[in-house]
Amino acid sequence: MSYYSEPLSNLIKELQRLPGIGPKTAQRLAFFIIEGPAANGEKLARAISLAKTEIRFCKQCFNFASDDLCPICLNSKRDGSFICVVEDAKDIFAIEKTHHFNGLYHVLHGTISPIDGIGPEHLKITELIERVKGSPVKEVVIATNPNVEGEQTAMYISKLLKECKVKVSRIASGLPVGGDIEYADEVTLSRALDGRHEI
Amino acid sequence: MSYYSEPLSNLIKELQRLPGIGPKTAQRLAFFIIEGPAANGEKLARAISLAKTEIRFCKQCFNFASDDLCPICLNSKRDGSFICVVEDAKDIFAIEKTHHFNGLYHVLHGTISPIDGIGPEHLKITELIERVKGSPVKEVVIATNPNVEGEQTAMYISKLLKECKVKVSRIASGLPVGGDIEYADEVTLSRALDGRHEI
Repeated sequence: MSYYSEPLSNLIKELQRLPGIGPKTAQRLAFFIIEGPAANGEKLARAISLAKTEIRFCKQCFNFASDDLCPICLNSKRDGSFICVVEDAKDIFAIEKTHHFNGLYHVLHGTISPIDGIGPEHLKITELIERVKGSPVKEVVIATNPNVEGEQTAMYISKLLKECKVKVSRIASGLPVGGDIEYADEVTLSRALDGRHEI
Repeated sequence: MSYYSEPLSNLIKELQRLPGIGPKTAQRLAFFIIEGPAANGEKLARAISLAKTEIRFCKQCFNFASDDLCPICLNSKRDGSFICVVEDAKDIFAIEKTHHFNGLYHVLHGTISPIDGIGPEHLKITELIERVKGSPVKEVVIATNPNVEGEQTAMYISKLLKECKVKVSRIASGLPVGGDIEYADEVTLSRALDGRHEI
């Protein structure tokens, strides 16, 4: 593509590395950046650099943090007696948006998946057990995804945690709100039946 | 959003300024950047900075350039006797992709639009006339968009150019390839009929 000047074609190339950004979108974004005020481009470039250099893992829960602890672990209003175990830091933000959980988190950074060669030793499971042993935790809510790897991981962790004499729970599986019984798959529907509760 | 650490929420905010990037996509891109190799983030940041600082307008055609002249004006294989006039630098890349034009370009950077307060003096029209006068141009192809402002601008420029004794042409308007006569609007269909040619 020799008709682009070099800094432009380089910017388009770099933008195309981002997920879901194809050549057309990359070109549109590049033109937007070039045509916009210089300050905006500089701000974006600095935000990317800073995010890469300043963000590390929270020493307690392995969420993203800019200090030793993440904003959630630092927040004194959170209830330290509940720990929600998630696969990925992104899941924290999904759960936070519900405003339905006020405890702390623990990010595993993956799930046990023998087929991909990921065993328990590759995840932050030992750190979770140590953490639970050393603090007055009442309940650990396991919120790994409701798929094969997520369930396996939840089972594995719950066995280890029960030895620590702590209550372990699993998030409910069932029909999504607004869903339709007619179109639900059998596994989800069986789960919804198993998980029925009195009203 | 206090549960994001500051560099992360800042990156998400900056990414959201980009066109077509909403909160969800911005979050997805930010996580991708943070989780990817440090070198990739740094490359993207540098590409943005460089694009903003190094890219200026070509002195001859007002396309984006990193030197005084853009890669197209610098290319000795291009035919300087044809100039294609476009509204926007983006249009150049659309035309280049056809591999159907080997002349040079001239970017107006807009169209005459009295309702938006944009007159001929805000566009690179004087520069076009000067350029045509001073060089052995045989034909100027006006490739502004086929809408009211584009047509007005094309008419205005063609009047001025005719005084320079140069051939002026306008890109054809008609049915798009793969289009359907049944569903074509009246104006496009009238244009297609007016522009008919012997076979």
